Parts: sequence; C-alpha cells; structure tokens
Amino acid sequence: MQYSVKELLEKGKLLQEVTVQGWVRTFRSNRFIALNDGSTIHNIQCVVDFENMDEQMLKRVTTSAALKITGTLTESQGKGQTVEIQVSQLEILGDSDPETYPIQPKKHSLEFLRENAHLRVRTNAFGAIMRVRSVLSFAIHKYFQENGFFYVNTPIITGSDAEGAGEMFRVTTLDAKNPPLNENGSVQYSEDFFGKETNLTVSGQLEAETFAMSLGKVYTFGPTFRAENSNTSRHLAEFWMVEPEVAFLDLAGNMDLAEDFIKYVLRHVLENCKDDIEFLEQRLIEEEKSKPQNERSEMTLSERLRFVVDNNFKRVSYTEAIDILKNSKPNKNKKFQYLIDEWGADLQSEHERFLVEKHFKCPVILFDYPAKIKAFYMRLNEDGKTVRAMDILFPGIGEIVGGSQREERYDVLVEKIKATGIDEKELWWYLDLRKFGTAVHSGFGLGFERLVLFTTGMTNIRDVIPFPRTPQSAEF
Amino acid sequence: MQYSVKELLEKGKLLQEVTVQGWVRTFRSNRFIALNDGSTIHNIQCVVDFENMDEQMLKRVTTSAALKITGTLTESQGKGQTVEIQVSQLEILGDSDPETYPIQPKKHSLEFLRENAHLRVRTNAFGAIMRVRSVLSFAIHKYFQENGFFYVNTPIITGSDAEGAGEMFRVTTLDAKNPPLNENGSVQYSEDFFGKETNLTVSGQLEAETFAMSLGKVYTFGPTFRAENSNTSRHLAEFWMVEPEVAFLDLAGNMDLAEDFIKYVLRHVLENCKDDIEFLEQRLIEEEKSKPQNERSEMTLSERLRFVVDNNFKRVSYTEAIDILKNSKPNKNKKFQYLIDEWGADLQSEHERFLVEKHFKCPVILFDYPAKIKAFYMRLNEDGKTVRAMDILFPGIGEIVGGSQREERYDVLVEKIKATGIDEKELWWYLDLRKFGTAVHSGFGLGFERLVLFTTGMTNIRDVIPFPRTPQSAEF
Repeated sequence: MQYSVKELLEKGKLLQEVTVQGWVRTFRSNRFIALNDGSTIHNIQCVVDFENMDEQMLKRVTTSAALKITGTLTESQGKGQTVEIQVSQLEILGDSDPETYPIQPKKHSLEFLRENAHLRVRTNAFGAIMRVRSVLSFAIHKYFQENGFFYVNTPIITGSDAEGAGEMFRVTTLDAKNPPLNENGSVQYSEDFFGKETNLTVSGQLEAETFAMSLGKVYTFGPTFRAENSNTSRHLAEFWMVEPEVAFLDLAGNMDLAEDFIKYVLRHVLENCKDDIEFLEQRLIEEEKSKPQNERSEMTLSERLRFVVDNNFKRVSYTEAIDILKNSKPNKNKKFQYLIDEWGADLQSEHERFLVEKHFKCPVILFDYPAKIKAFYMRLNEDGKTVRAMDILFPGIGEIVGGSQREERYDVLVEKIKATGIDEKELWWYLDLRKFGTAVHSGFGLGFERLVLFTTGMTNIRDVIPFPRTPQSAEF
Repeated sequence: MQYSVKELLEKGKLLQEVTVQGWVRTFRSNRFIALNDGSTIHNIQCVVDFENMDEQMLKRVTTSAALKITGTLTESQGKGQTVEIQVSQLEILGDSDPETYPIQPKKHSLEFLRENAHLRVRTNAFGAIMRVRSVLSFAIHKYFQENGFFYVNTPIITGSDAEGAGEMFRVTTLDAKNPPLNENGSVQYSEDFFGKETNLTVSGQLEAETFAMSLGKVYTFGPTFRAENSNTSRHLAEFWMVEPEVAFLDLAGNMDLAEDFIKYVLRHVLENCKDDIEFLEQRLIEEEKSKPQNERSEMTLSERLRFVVDNNFKRVSYTEAIDILKNSKPNKNKKFQYLIDEWGADLQSEHERFLVEKHFKCPVILFDYPAKIKAFYMRLNEDGKTVRAMDILFPGIGEIVGGSQREERYDVLVEKIKATGIDEKELWWYLDLRKFGTAVHSGFGLGFERLVLFTTGMTNIRDVIPFPRTPQSAEF
C-alpha cells in the first residue's frame, strides 16, 4: 500500500509491505537512502541490499532524484529513526544529474536560494518555512470561522484612489506606448478596460467595513500591494494581509481581539508544527553563532513564541510612550537618529524597537496616537487631538498590526476626508455607512509575512513568501 | 450580557437579561422590531411596550437603523420564532432616514442591487450568499489541510507571459502618457517597477507545480485575472481560483481527488448553512415562478446539491462524447449552432450542456481531449494525439473544473513548448522540474465563483462576489 513519509513515521505498522514515493535527500554508504516527500521535515530511511541491486541503477540514486520504493517496514537499528524500509523494489522515476543540480548538499547562501526559488523549497529550511506558513494560514481562517466571522474577498483591482495607505500599481490594458488621449492631452482612461483609471489595492479595509456593517464580523485575507521603492528586509511589493472588521466593537475590544487572535494562531503552530519549529530553532542557533554574543537572541525560537502566547501584551498610550522615550538613555545620549523632543512626533523604527526590546521586553500595543500622523478614517477622541488607533509592536519585527476604531460620525468623517484633500464624492459609498445605521466599529490589519517571519525566526521577508516581488525583481 | 442574534436563537437561556446590537429589518404595529446582526439569516423579535416608550425615539426605529437593545429573553407567543426579547432599554446607535435609504422593504432588481453593492449585503438574499461563500471557502481550506496539502500563495504579479490561459492586465508604475522609450522606440520596461514588463496572473499552476515537486501535495486559493471583454453572466475580470497540484498522482487519481473534494465542500455547506440554503431554495422557487413550466429546474436547490454529493460523476472520454454528440438529436436536426461532424472539434457550451443536462443528467468528467485544443503542459498520451486532460461539467454552470496530468518528460515538454511559439528560455525554471527528479503529477483549477453560483442557485456570477470587476465596471 502507498503511504506518505509522515504516515510511515507516525503510525506505520511494522513488517507490512509498503510503497512510498519521494525525492532522495542523501544516499550513504551505497546502502542508506534518506527519502523525503514533503509531508514532513523528516526522511524515511530506505535500506538497500546493494549486493543484489543493479549497480547502474544505484548510481542514479542521487540528490533530488525521484524514486518509488517498495519494501518491508521494520524497526530501525540505526540512530535517529524508529522505523526504516528494507527495500525490495526500487524504481527511478526521475533522474537528477549531480553535476548540474543547483542545490548541492552543502550550505547555500539565502541570496543564492532566492535566485532558485523554484528549487529552494527542496531544502529542509524552506520546506519547514512553507509548511509553517501553510499551517499559520489555516489557523487564521480557523480562528475567525470558529468565532463567527465571515470571510470576505474584497477587490484586488480598485477604482478608488482614496485608500491612502501608499503608492499604487496601475492596472491597465491601454497601449503602453501610444495610449489614447483626451482633447486636453491627458490619458483617456475612459478607453481603459474598466472605463476609468484602476490600481492594485493597498488595503481591503474600506470595502470590508461595508460587510461588517451588515454581517457584523468579517475578515479579509488576501494579497495587497505597495509600489514603494523600499529595498529592505521588511518590505515586499506584494504581500498578504489579514484584515478583520467588527461592528459594535470599540478600541479596547479591538485590542482584545488582536491579542487573542495572535496568541491563538501561534499556539496552533506550536502544537501542529513541532518538528518544523524545532528545526528552525536549531537553524537560528547555528545562524547566530557567527554573531557576537551580545547580538544573539536571548530566547530560542520556541521560547519566543511561547513568551508571546503566555504573556499579556503591554498596552501603552502614545503619550506615555513619548514620556518614556523622552527620558530614555538613547534619547538623552543622542543615540537615536531622530531625537524625541515633543508630543506629536511620529515614532520611528528605532523608537519602537527600544520600547519593545529594551524597555518592556514584550509585545507592546501603542494606542491613542495624534490624529495628525494617522489616517482619516480613525475615530477622533473627545480631546480633539488623538485618534483611537493602535499598533502592535513585536520584538525583532516592529509593527505587526495596525488598527483603529473607525470614525462612525458622518459629519466628523466628512471634515476629516476634506482635510486630507480627498474628494468626498469618491467615497460616497463609504459615507453611506455613516448615513444609514452607523455604529461603533473597529478593525486591524496584520501583515501576514511579518507574522511568518516572527514564527520561523527568519530575518528577511523575501524568505517567507514563495516568490517574492520587490523593486527590480519579479522572477518566476 | 451581550449576545449575537444567532446565539440568542440557538441556545439563549430564558428569563435572563440580554443585550443585543443590530440593524432593524422591520418594525410592525409600533411594537415588534425584527433585529438582525448578520450572524444568521434569522432576526430576533424585540417586543416594545410602546405605551411606556418615548414616542420620538420609536419614530427613529426605521429600516436599517442600528439599535442596542436590552431586555428579557422569553418564550415567544407569536408564530415564526421560539424566543423574543421583552425590551427594557432601547438605544438608537445610528439613524437611517427612510426617505433616502436606498434599499426599501420591497423587491429590488439584481441590477439595482449591484449598483448598491455596499448595501446589498443587508438584504436576506445577499447576506445568505455571502455567508455561504465564506463557509465554502473554509470548507476548501479544511478539506486540503485535513488531507495533507499545504497552502501556497503563488504570485499575483507575474513576469512570465507563458501561462497562456488568456489575455492579461499590465501592472506598471511607468508614466501613462509619456513612458520612457528605448532607442528603437519601444517602451523601456527596464525602467518599470520590476525592471521588466509584468502582468496580473491568470493561473498559479506553473508556480504551484514547483511546490508540488517538493512538498508533495499543495493547493492555491487566490485571485486570478482575465482581461477579456466578456460581458456575460459567467465571466469576471477578477475571480478566485482553487488550484491543487499533487506529485505522484495520475489522471485517474486527479479525477478521484476533484470529485471527492467537490462532494466534501458541498456536504459541508449542506450541514453548516441549512438556514441560508433553505432561504435561497425558496428564493429560487419564487424566481422560477415567472418562467414557463418547462424551463423551471427539475430539482430544488438542496436536491441539486444532494444529487451531486450522493452520486458518482459520470466519466466519459472525449472520443465517446463526440460519438454521443454526433448521433444526438440536436446534431441530426441541426439544432446545435456548431454541428459536430468529426473528432477533434472543440466542444462548445451547447454541447457540454447537452451532455450534462439532457444525456447524462449528472455531473460529467470528460477526459483525454485532443492535444491540439489543450494547453502545452498536459501529458501526451501514448496515442500521440490526445492529452490527459479532464474537465468537470456541472448542470447550469458548465465547466467548473479544468485539470490534467502534467507532461513530466523533459524532451516532450520542450517540443510542446516550442510548438506553441513560447520561448523555452522563459520557462527555464518550469523545465528544471523535469530535469531534476521529475515524476508523474497532476492538478486542476476550480473557479470558485462558479461553485458559489451552483451552491446558491444564483444565475449571474456578479451576484456571488462582493464587488464584481467586469468590462467598464470597477466601482467601490
């Protein structure tokens, strides 16, 4: 009977004849084939009686060759595995020429592997990362569905340019060289596919709000885009975002939701990806050996995950945070690149990292930000100068969640839209939500790849998405 | 304590004080408020003692106004519900002016509701559709995750123009009016964001194959795009697609997988969306009353769903299908627009519908199509003229799944690529899969909105996606 490697290792009955198909990871002593089929990070050891096998065939048992193996499952005598297969039949399904196969059995740089993103998932590390990514995705759906949320697919192509969250990519079918022009010389977008200028979405929030104001609790989980020339280890031009939106929920409830949600999905991964997390933890320890002692992580990967799951996120108002930062050593010693001298300053990554990594040493939720540095749709507080915004900051990652209670008052929202210079007519449908049965509501956005980064202990966001899109790079 | 309407109707303890927030559906006799919060299609009846309530406030209880109601949960004396709330406190959270609120308590046309897609989900029908859509999505993830598949997010922006499944949208940040030009006058895409010409993906299959050839079993579930000027009730420019891809799986196994998968997700909806399906079933019956008897469905909605779940899909080779069609009445009587006279003809929608709706009267899997009418990546059969393709045809919907065993042989694949005119260098990474550990593998694509259409009994694909994108239309 046909089994996956995972099935064989988990519950394979001994002494029965089994068949397994997979790819060769290593072949030692002309006798021990470590076979992997992607179902788990572990390999099944297949023991070949080389004296009774065709020598020419054994030569074809090379790294990444595809094999079909039949044999008897037995208790293993060797170290590192409990069962192994005594091979009776071996079939080479697909060869892999060791001279030209790009992924050699040695340590490759992450840069090299990125150039071979179609093959990098054949390595232990990327196999583990992509399995963890998949389990995290499912945990996200599971959490929301089990808590009465409905999944909503907000549009990817948007005709609205009022999302205001960043630079956008234009989506078009007009002739690239000679687009049709209006009489005044401007591009005639009425001739474009959608009859207007369209872009790739930067956020599904505004559309998700329309659904929250009727289905009550909804979430999006889909791709979003930023056409920003940010060539950093934390930015992608195309990334996946999770955006819950809930009617009748205020900012405090929003913080509760975000914290409960993050803890749930990390707990789910700790319980369901033990082997992969263990591997990634060892990988990180090895990786950090090359760093000076004081730059190494204080916690192992699983300790870091458990720390988030087991502890309360520290909730700190922006105003408190400014006080802490103003009086901090790096501010007084002018070690910050941007010195904090007054209320109203936008926090930079260095400040967020100080709060999380040095001061509180745990995830931090900052809330009640100055209205001036936040988006138009956030609920203005009674003080008239702060809004009910919240950002969740994680060690090593920085901002992982940004959310807010939304401005539910029609008149206030119109004023805020006007102040940003957006034409309020563009947002007629968004304003309708405040005209007809408006109510307090809140939501947040979580950058999925940043969560995968945190969960896997990787440091470059290009290594936690199958085929990264960044400035000057859209391979595969 | 705060409850959702669903919680109150399902398991609310009688005689306790409860609070609920939602939107008014109807207000009868100045006494009975039907309140809905989106958690279920059903409303909770809230009974107002109007003699002891502020008259001005009661006037504000209008369709779609947002209310917060506190009262005692009691057994209902009226028909149609088991429990109701005797209101002690009523708060108007958000008014809804009945003079200007677009969705009146009457039947609106689907066209009108599409123009108000931000509000249409407040109707019973669209609430039901969007809840069913959400449950279907989750069932898809659940099926794959429980069967050892890993979710893979293939790229939305693609630099490869070899997918070959249809017209593409260009993604660009170049100046629309005056793009930079090369010396020869062509557009200088090296100056574009990604340093090359990029488009929106039409399929994640090729990239998913790279993951299947290492993780074994994977699936995508994400948006895909077609820049085709098809203004029909079956086509969207932006739609969601599910694409599983499995190593070591042949065409027969692929058909088994697709059939098992579809039955699972429909069974899941039948079990978890009883109320919504019941409502949609009644809606369809009402809808069809205006049709002549012989055009009405022979089965109700739930019968149709159960029919698919309980019966085997009929598997028919293309060659058999051609024989059936050649000898069919509409072919002999020249009722088909495209008459079938020889093997090799591409099947049109009229032929597929005849096979499914008239001849077999059940879902049909057609397989082993002529190579000439199918894509380059499909496995050539030993006869040299057919490929291991399969399409699943559903009554009323037509093609809901298209899949194939993939060509795993390097030399054959190179020949097939060349024959299509694609530069094989473009597909170097795809060809690498056949160079290094190639193996039999298969997969299929399921158009998610077509599945939602079938499941909800709706007839226009624009009514089963939150904000449809079609030629000349990208509102919201």
